[in-house]
Amino acid sequence: MKVLVINGPNLNLLGTREPEIYGSSTLSDIQQNVEGLLSQAGFSCDFFQSNAEHEIVEKIQAAISNTAFIIINPAAFTHTSVAIRDALAAVAVPFIEIHLSNPHARESFRRHSYLSDIAEGVIAGFGENSYYLACEAVIKRLQHPKKC
Amino acid sequence: MKVLVINGPNLNLLGTREPEIYGSSTLSDIQQNVEGLLSQAGFSCDFFQSNAEHEIVEKIQAAISNTAFIIINPAAFTHTSVAIRDALAAVAVPFIEIHLSNPHARESFRRHSYLSDIAEGVIAGFGENSYYLACEAVIKRLQHPKKC
Amino acid sequence: MKVLVINGPNLNLLGTREPEIYGSSTLSDIQQNVEGLLSQAGFSCDFFQSNAEHEIVEKIQAAISNTAFIIINPAAFTHTSVAIRDALAAVAVPFIEIHLSNPHARESFRRHSYLSDIAEGVIAGFGENSYYLACEAVIKRLQHPKKC
Amino acid sequence: MKVLVINGPNLNLLGTREPEIYGSSTLSDIQQNVEGLLSQAGFSCDFFQSNAEHEIVEKIQAAISNTAFIIINPAAFTHTSVAIRDALAAVAVPFIEIHLSNPHARESFRRHSYLSDIAEGVIAGFGENSYYLACEAVIKRLQHPKKC
Amino acid sequence: MKVLVINGPNLNLLGTREPEIYGSSTLSDIQQNVEGLLSQAGFSCDFFQSNAEHEIVEKIQAAISNTAFIIINPAAFTHTSVAIRDALAAVAVPFIEIHLSNPHARESFRRHSYLSDIAEGVIAGFGENSYYLACEAVIKRLQHPKKC
Amino acid sequence: MKVLVINGPNLNLLGTREPEIYGSSTLSDIQQNVEGLLSQAGFSCDFFQSNAEHEIVEKIQAAISNTAFIIINPAAFTHTSVAIRDALAAVAVPFIEIHLSNPHARESFRRHSYLSDIAEGVIAGFGENSYYLACEAVIKRLQHPKKC
Amino acid sequence: MKVLVINGPNLNLLGTREPEIYGSSTLSDIQQNVEGLLSQAGFSCDFFQSNAEHEIVEKIQAAISNTAFIIINPAAFTHTSVAIRDALAAVAVPFIEIHLSNPHARESFRRHSYLSDIAEGVIAGFGENSYYLACEAVIKRLQHPKKC
Amino acid sequence: MKVLVINGPNLNLLGTREPEIYGSSTLSDIQQNVEGLLSQAGFSCDFFQSNAEHEIVEKIQAAISNTAFIIINPAAFTHTSVAIRDALAAVAVPFIEIHLSNPHARESFRRHSYLSDIAEGVIAGFGENSYYLACEAVIKRLQHPKKC
Amino acid sequence: MKVLVINGPNLNLLGTREPEIYGSSTLSDIQQNVEGLLSQAGFSCDFFQSNAEHEIVEKIQAAISNTAFIIINPAAFTHTSVAIRDALAAVAVPFIEIHLSNPHARESFRRHSYLSDIAEGVIAGFGENSYYLACEAVIKRLQHPKKC
Amino acid sequence: MKVLVINGPNLNLLGTREPEIYGSSTLSDIQQNVEGLLSQAGFSCDFFQSNAEHEIVEKIQAAISNTAFIIINPAAFTHTSVAIRDALAAVAVPFIEIHLSNPHARESFRRHSYLSDIAEGVIAGFGENSYYLACEAVIKRLQHPKKC
Amino acid sequence: MKVLVINGPNLNLLGTREPEIYGSSTLSDIQQNVEGLLSQAGFSCDFFQSNAEHEIVEKIQAAISNTAFIIINPAAFTHTSVAIRDALAAVAVPFIEIHLSNPHARESFRRHSYLSDIAEGVIAGFGENSYYLACEAVIKRLQHPKKC
Amino acid sequence: MKVLVINGPNLNLLGTREPEIYGSSTLSDIQQNVEGLLSQAGFSCDFFQSNAEHEIVEKIQAAISNTAFIIINPAAFTHTSVAIRDALAAVAVPFIEIHLSNPHARESFRRHSYLSDIAEGVIAGFGENSYYLACEAVIKRLQHPKKC
Repeated sequence: MKVLVINGPNLNLLGTREPEIYGSSTLSDIQQNVEGLLSQAGFSCDFFQSNAEHEIVEKIQAAISNTAFIIINPAAFTHTSVAIRDALAAVAVPFIEIHLSNPHARESFRRHSYLSDIAEGVIAGFGENSYYLACEAVIKRLQHPKKC
Repeated sequence: MKVLVINGPNLNLLGTREPEIYGSSTLSDIQQNVEGLLSQAGFSCDFFQSNAEHEIVEKIQAAISNTAFIIINPAAFTHTSVAIRDALAAVAVPFIEIHLSNPHARESFRRHSYLSDIAEGVIAGFGENSYYLACEAVIKRLQHPKKC
Repeated sequence: MKVLVINGPNLNLLGTREPEIYGSSTLSDIQQNVEGLLSQAGFSCDFFQSNAEHEIVEKIQAAISNTAFIIINPAAFTHTSVAIRDALAAVAVPFIEIHLSNPHARESFRRHSYLSDIAEGVIAGFGENSYYLACEAVIKRLQHPKKC
Repeated sequence: MKVLVINGPNLNLLGTREPEIYGSSTLSDIQQNVEGLLSQAGFSCDFFQSNAEHEIVEKIQAAISNTAFIIINPAAFTHTSVAIRDALAAVAVPFIEIHLSNPHARESFRRHSYLSDIAEGVIAGFGENSYYLACEAVIKRLQHPKKC
Repeated sequence: MKVLVINGPNLNLLGTREPEIYGSSTLSDIQQNVEGLLSQAGFSCDFFQSNAEHEIVEKIQAAISNTAFIIINPAAFTHTSVAIRDALAAVAVPFIEIHLSNPHARESFRRHSYLSDIAEGVIAGFGENSYYLACEAVIKRLQHPKKC
Repeated sequence: MKVLVINGPNLNLLGTREPEIYGSSTLSDIQQNVEGLLSQAGFSCDFFQSNAEHEIVEKIQAAISNTAFIIINPAAFTHTSVAIRDALAAVAVPFIEIHLSNPHARESFRRHSYLSDIAEGVIAGFGENSYYLACEAVIKRLQHPKKC
Repeated sequence: MKVLVINGPNLNLLGTREPEIYGSSTLSDIQQNVEGLLSQAGFSCDFFQSNAEHEIVEKIQAAISNTAFIIINPAAFTHTSVAIRDALAAVAVPFIEIHLSNPHARESFRRHSYLSDIAEGVIAGFGENSYYLACEAVIKRLQHPKKC
Repeated sequence: MKVLVINGPNLNLLGTREPEIYGSSTLSDIQQNVEGLLSQAGFSCDFFQSNAEHEIVEKIQAAISNTAFIIINPAAFTHTSVAIRDALAAVAVPFIEIHLSNPHARESFRRHSYLSDIAEGVIAGFGENSYYLACEAVIKRLQHPKKC
Repeated sequence: MKVLVINGPNLNLLGTREPEIYGSSTLSDIQQNVEGLLSQAGFSCDFFQSNAEHEIVEKIQAAISNTAFIIINPAAFTHTSVAIRDALAAVAVPFIEIHLSNPHARESFRRHSYLSDIAEGVIAGFGENSYYLACEAVIKRLQHPKKC
Repeated sequence: MKVLVINGPNLNLLGTREPEIYGSSTLSDIQQNVEGLLSQAGFSCDFFQSNAEHEIVEKIQAAISNTAFIIINPAAFTHTSVAIRDALAAVAVPFIEIHLSNPHARESFRRHSYLSDIAEGVIAGFGENSYYLACEAVIKRLQHPKKC
Repeated sequence: MKVLVINGPNLNLLGTREPEIYGSSTLSDIQQNVEGLLSQAGFSCDFFQSNAEHEIVEKIQAAISNTAFIIINPAAFTHTSVAIRDALAAVAVPFIEIHLSNPHARESFRRHSYLSDIAEGVIAGFGENSYYLACEAVIKRLQHPKKC
Repeated sequence: MKVLVINGPNLNLLGTREPEIYGSSTLSDIQQNVEGLLSQAGFSCDFFQSNAEHEIVEKIQAAISNTAFIIINPAAFTHTSVAIRDALAAVAVPFIEIHLSNPHARESFRRHSYLSDIAEGVIAGFGENSYYLACEAVIKRLQHPKKC
């Protein structure tokens, strides 16, 4: 069973960009940790970053046949992409929306997400730990689907 | 080091109320699991439920001297209590806001929280797992404060 | 079969407070009349007033096992209590929302109710008669459940 | 003393239209019951339905000389007719606004009424019983004008 | 040259309804005065009242061929009728919107008019004098079209 | 099988009114073409125009027994009539909303329609062709109900 | 008895500025006509223009002792001056608000007036005739105070 | 004559909580000063703090018979309690609303108060001096009721 | 003469995604039918789908020299793309906006389109027939440009 | 040390204008009392009134070198003057905003102040006592700057 | 050819007021530089500052006959003066709106300008360089009127 | 030192598209002029256009190491791209936002920019001169960083 982890625009800068807000780990540090957590629980992981909305849309479309869960940090696309919302709704793979920082503590336009209302759940504000908590959530959900 | 877990109004009904939404575990099932997770990591736990805003305010006030972290499922008070917000701001103990269900998938008035913008992070939509993920988050945060 | 009649904050002042708006009957006058109407129709009555949101929440929670209908005059809590809404939704006992005066003829913040959209019905503006009309409604509803 | 009962657009379809929402009684069934209740209390009844705003306006204008109370189910005109509001204000006959279903549980545009703030009272959500409760209210009000 | 004077719903009650606001002259008193003023200036007058939107729409449609100016007191239709707006725009006869009372001093919904932005001008708040001032305006406009 | 084509207020002026916007065909030209298209496909046609909301409401009510589809150009009533919406919902005959011009390119109040969200579909901006396209849509829909 | 006529900012440019909108008469042409109309009816006239809010405020304050009516074309101050509103309310001299052009046909910020709700009446859209109609209104009002 | 001084939620923390904003005096320091000021002027003082809305409601209700003035620092309840507003309106004892800090300089939700429009006056932003200024205001008001 | 048919994001999934809403035809089925209809009328067809906003922008830019009409189903980009709007405005090729489902019957954010106010017309809610109706519209428009 | 007391437009009318709202003391009565209070505490006073925004702006600018505190009753300019706000921010002299009446109990546009969020504090609703309380506040603040 | 440079309220304080935001150059330093730049390009310069709206209005009015371009830093009047907008529209001299700081990075009320939509262009955020850039823009525009 | 000049979607059409609004210079004409201005001042220039949001995001990301200033004409992305905002904030290179036309004089959705509040400055409405003025601004800023 595969878990797809999607990272939106500018997350390739992680570790170099405002470390006091986002931490000093790079996206590839996080990838390693995520892959470790998931493989330990018996899941494979497809870890993906793109700055292009259409590449994310197409990655989600491709998930339709072989993906048990999606973890998505949509970054800026949280607030602007109906196309990603529509792709997630179309493939009907359950997904978790995550954020490094807490969007409610930032500019007011970050309070609206095009994904939250169709997400399984939302995890925000824990820095790189948001990824690891989402892994835990996915593992719990796939191992004990009845629990929540 | 103590972790305070606060549960807002109507959560005492858990397990009996709309199990298809909130799961069939009772609040005391959750309490046991939470205490297990935290004690395993070396933290004591004060697990508290009240339907009264002032009791929650006072519980938070009392946390000022001996509590390392607060996990709060404010339930209905999420949307109506400035007093709880003020108490949390006053004691300055870091806290995580959790929700069993996904507030963005419910009535529109549930989209506004008086707590989110001053929370460390928010976890919503994972049923009882929201509690356990918050425990993980607290443990990670207290053991590696530099990480996020 | 029991009917629970709940009275929100400041209704204990009834008869003493602005009688030209609210009439000169006291809450205990109303209680007597309500009990009379309901017992005549074969229902027992639990008549309750509180200025505390949590006491009303807990009264509603307790209704889960033995109450056929709730009549609630939520007074100020109409506009501010999500906790009471959640309690009513949780116990799933059908309820009628009543008001002594007509909220639409008062300050604009009284136009929004956290209860109306999940109530069986709403009766407002008839002074103490709002209670007696609600009793009639409950009786009709319990005696002829098919009718509406 | 005469009571005028006005029924707005589409209420002529009652009993045939979405019976699971509006009940299976026809408007003429309701008329019979209303006339019965009122005549029993010593009042005559003028029961009127129209799909035309101007006919309702003119019916209300005609009430100025001989009508003690108006019961109006304005249906769709609740949300769109200032002319009916002005007619009711002009004749200054006290009136009760009723609804079969609960407008707060339907589309958001049904939350605004052009009549509520000048009505004596509002009764909504009780199916055909909304009519009978309004009759009770009128009878109580005309027999004991001091009471509310 | 004909001037059409249109009166909206409930204006047939004029003189009987709230005389302290609207004055004690009846609509037929006003009609006599209006006809006097206009005939003195060499214009014929078609004075019309209806409580029905469609009758007003059709009266306006009929004006297309033989009417130099329309004076309209739309009353309640000011705030609710797009059909009257469309009729006035279609026939392209210049018109003046008048009101007996000052809509800005009344309920807030009276501040919006569907006609004002396509009217030649607006006269409001002068009681029956609003009609006579509109006549003056029409006469000035038709006798000295260049002036404004 | 009958198709009912309803035309709202001021459409009787078609061909005479702002031809550069609405074209120079009259409503009876359109009626002929519509009847031709529908009869060619084996449907009879009831083509109706009224400036009165209640006549349109009653025409729709009468359609309940013998009409397969309604095409409605509600004109000004698009933005103001809840009664027509309620009639269409009550009879439950599928309908298409059409407009000669494009409401999104006109005044901002024309952007809201009381009908669109319960319509099968909407066709706007094609002048008289909006009617013929709606006929095509009805024919396709009735001949191949499975297709959309 | 004196009538004060106040002209707000930029009206000194009248006749030179956008004559196709405001007409070609200068403010002093208008002054002559206004003085003529008022003196004919036995009233003296104080005709005043200023581009300064405080000069208008002080002119109004001075009117307290000797002025029967104020006609004010507040121009830009319509939308921005609470000080002029307060001055008019303080001196309690009845006043008419006039506009050369129709504010509803211009930018949306011109739809709000700080004066309209406390004015006797409003006359807008008649070019210089707005002044003369206001004179008529004042004369009618002062000669027949009972009429409106 | 008694003056009731009410302190809302979290004010028991005063002196310990964010002293750079709220000062270092405790609530009991303030109580001593307030009692001194009032007794010097011949008034007794009932100084009360509660974190519970219902206790404040009931304290206000009890004031009906023996209290000349209420000074209330509603803290968080400023923005959320209609019940306290209703209690204050019911007992009809004049009251002053005070705040330690300036609510207009904080989060935007603090700009709305459920009490201000029915208060005698409002004093905000002077730290503990807000209490002493309110005492002065009460003393002036009770000794020279005509003055304001 | 060429007609360009543009399909926005996720439309490549057509036929596989929520067939009960969007029908079971694939985009290539639709392409065949569209090409058939257009070639029958003597037009060539360029049928294009992309999940990338910039590819659609560039496709539209390229249309400037050789395209008589554009039919666009912008899907998610309807609500988020000013770039596509600007491209369509820049090339000044007339276009029709189409939708498979009825956006007014879905989430409220789908009610706003960045394209509708500059489109020739809009066709929505007819499933794949929306395409064929748009072809009819284009054909009518290109063969009889005077008609609408 | 000098205290500057600024009075906005129409306050020169004090004592003559609506005495039941604003009291019967004139501004010069108040000036005497204010000067008395301040000189008693060892401060000189510059008491200033103007109906002109620019004169107030310039008075504030001049305060930069020699003024310890400003008390300002901005009257109508509260709601309309960004220039006064900017002047106060530029000179950086601490100031108190006062009002005779309670703005929250008046028209809704009086609820917004351009000054409150940068004021030290706000005192409103105490008639002329608002001035004397502000003097007390200034004296306390200048004598014990640490206290708040 | 003359260029008029207008400076709004509080700009006379430049160089003394918050230099970290507005720079340390005084307005007369800027005047010298502006005059230098313009005279070098062959234009005379009228450099004007006022804290009074009416003086700015009158300066603009006087520009009608002899001014090729206006550069205006409206400061606080940006957000509050319709009179200045009307004066600029009346004289029809093209103008550039400039700001020292970036209004979008300050309080939200600074986001609205009464001038921007009728300005040739807007330059904001460059400190005193905003003036010099505007001079360049004017020079370019007057020397090559065809270029933009 | 390098200056990066970024051009958003559809700017590749410049010179061909609505020349009466945008001028007849092509983007490559502008590029030549910009390169000339910057090289004259000793700066190299990287001039870039893309219709793809992700290409602009990545161009900005690449600027982190070697770019002194960014000039960006975001075109349609002004109003829709949070990703570009985030990229600009992440690289922390100062930037100027420019527009050919004046967004305040166009559709209302163009009034909101996702970039303005974090830009150094904004220049809008000068056609191609907006580019050259921005170059001047950059040169001034880099040569005299203290000046603004």
